[in-house]
Amino acid sequence: MNNIICDILNIKTPIISGGMVWCSNWFLASSVSNQGGLGLIGAGSMTPEILEEHIKKCKDATNKPFGINIPLMNVNSEKNIAVAIKHKVDVVFTSAGNPTLYTQRLKDNGIKVIHVIANNHFALKAQNAGCDAVVAEGFEAGGHNGKEEITTLVLLEQLRGKLNIPVIAAGGIVSGKQILAAMLLGAQGVQIGTLFATSKESSGHINFKNAVINSTEGDTMLLLRKLSPTRLLKGNFFNMIKEAEDKGATEEELLNIIQSGRPKLGMFEGDLTNGELEIGQAASIINESLSVEEIFSKLKREYKEAFEELKNLNKDLVF
Amino acid sequence: MNNIICDILNIKTPIISGGMVWCSNWFLASSVSNQGGLGLIGAGSMTPEILEEHIKKCKDATNKPFGINIPLMNVNSEKNIAVAIKHKVDVVFTSAGNPTLYTQRLKDNGIKVIHVIANNHFALKAQNAGCDAVVAEGFEAGGHNGKEEITTLVLLEQLRGKLNIPVIAAGGIVSGKQILAAMLLGAQGVQIGTLFATSKESSGHINFKNAVINSTEGDTMLLLRKLSPTRLLKGNFFNMIKEAEDKGATEEELLNIIQSGRPKLGMFEGDLTNGELEIGQAASIINESLSVEEIFSKLKREYKEAFEELKNLNKDLVF
Repeated sequence: MNNIICDILNIKTPIISGGMVWCSNWFLASSVSNQGGLGLIGAGSMTPEILEEHIKKCKDATNKPFGINIPLMNVNSEKNIAVAIKHKVDVVFTSAGNPTLYTQRLKDNGIKVIHVIANNHFALKAQNAGCDAVVAEGFEAGGHNGKEEITTLVLLEQLRGKLNIPVIAAGGIVSGKQILAAMLLGAQGVQIGTLFATSKESSGHINFKNAVINSTEGDTMLLLRKLSPTRLLKGNFFNMIKEAEDKGATEEELLNIIQSGRPKLGMFEGDLTNGELEIGQAASIINESLSVEEIFSKLKREYKEAFEELKNLNKDLVF
Repeated sequence: MNNIICDILNIKTPIISGGMVWCSNWFLASSVSNQGGLGLIGAGSMTPEILEEHIKKCKDATNKPFGINIPLMNVNSEKNIAVAIKHKVDVVFTSAGNPTLYTQRLKDNGIKVIHVIANNHFALKAQNAGCDAVVAEGFEAGGHNGKEEITTLVLLEQLRGKLNIPVIAAGGIVSGKQILAAMLLGAQGVQIGTLFATSKESSGHINFKNAVINSTEGDTMLLLRKLSPTRLLKGNFFNMIKEAEDKGATEEELLNIIQSGRPKLGMFEGDLTNGELEIGQAASIINESLSVEEIFSKLKREYKEAFEELKNLNKDLVF
């Protein structure tokens, strides 16, 4: 038995850690790759110089493949693409933008390209651009999100059979049972963000990790639909945006609130009052900070248990 | 092997058709029950007199168990509860309200009670109220929806192991693969709305069914968060609400737009311009109007295929 995502990425286990701003540093990425998954460095919060530093440290910390996530709307994206090529990273995950922009250039340099999509339209666009796979990311995901608000369950179902390239499921996944469910729905691998954001190896601030761990159902919501839909953890900053939106705030008024330094302040420096806290809906399920090794053990154990439990179901759906 | 939902409801297949306003009449309900599932009559759009008529016709059309969905915020809810008791229906599904209100009274009259919840808090409340099961309905579902916007994938995961009563998954389910995925995540049955709303037996207007069938990704969105979050199909009525909300419309202003006759106008009378069209996110996946018999065949076939395909996955998640 083989797995096409493992084949493409030359990894052992088709679990990818999302390239999250301010959380996905070289340490988290190399730890995930050392467990047999694929670790991603989140270039969205990095200048080209800092990205280079993280790539070098990641190469020192693992001899396994790892990747970089580059949000294409980011001011540094073109320079970060050049850094990825210079250092011949194994794979670039592009997101939040047009997959035709850099895919061919990366492929010409021997780098695999996987694009993050939130609907069928962009999935086909990514396939046509020559991407090796897509990450199908649902409404549950933290941070920037698709405008159609399609959930992981519906997105996987509507994508099934529509592509010739494999699908990596993302959004709301924190357990091995959900991994098996996603594979049952046509995914060949998963990308997990929130769970790794709270891991011991994540570069997120301890205050941020604790806020996520202590959060409960309904504590993340999608806001900023007029700019770019973003899932945020509730708190002071969230409330400012919510109140403005409830009063009909324009794009300009919202831009004045969000300000560029807020994500760093919240997620990296731990200022829970003034900072922007981006996290997925499954935050409500996470109750402790685990190491990457513990997370892989947990996910594999739950996946195997799910397989065993299937024996208790009949195949006809008639009782 | 047995199935606790089938045991409780005395049915053969743990598939329940949602009790949808203007779509779930006696004909749809009895057709689903005749296929071995549980059909629900949607009392939310019925006066007590009309509900009685539908119960009588449903009893004439099937000797199998069927149920009624009664939204508790509805003006007729108390009278409809009395009708359910008078006619000793097998089971009442309560929704959109407090499960402690009528559960004991129904149980005392030998009627099973299942409450629709959208978060853990209300699931526990339903269990404590004596309900026999809960329907865990995610953000994908059509019509009225939970304030926390928890998706089916996350809701099932966060509920698993928290209840002593069984869980019926709902929201976004249109395939047998998704049914198996839901059962893998801890559900013992499923409630399906959108797919049955478009069925040949549904009392929804043909214009409404065709609009659902022709819709594509992103064509349903959740609006009306300031009143009661509601998933609607895009169109003229949707646009009126969306534009008002974007400008910060108050509850009063929104109430002026929605008006009580709109759902009937849209879903039952087929006025796609002025009517309110409530439908789930999985509308994008449905491309034809099937009979209830065809839907059951399709779901069972896909469920069985999903079982077979599991053989192609390894149990260790290591390749």
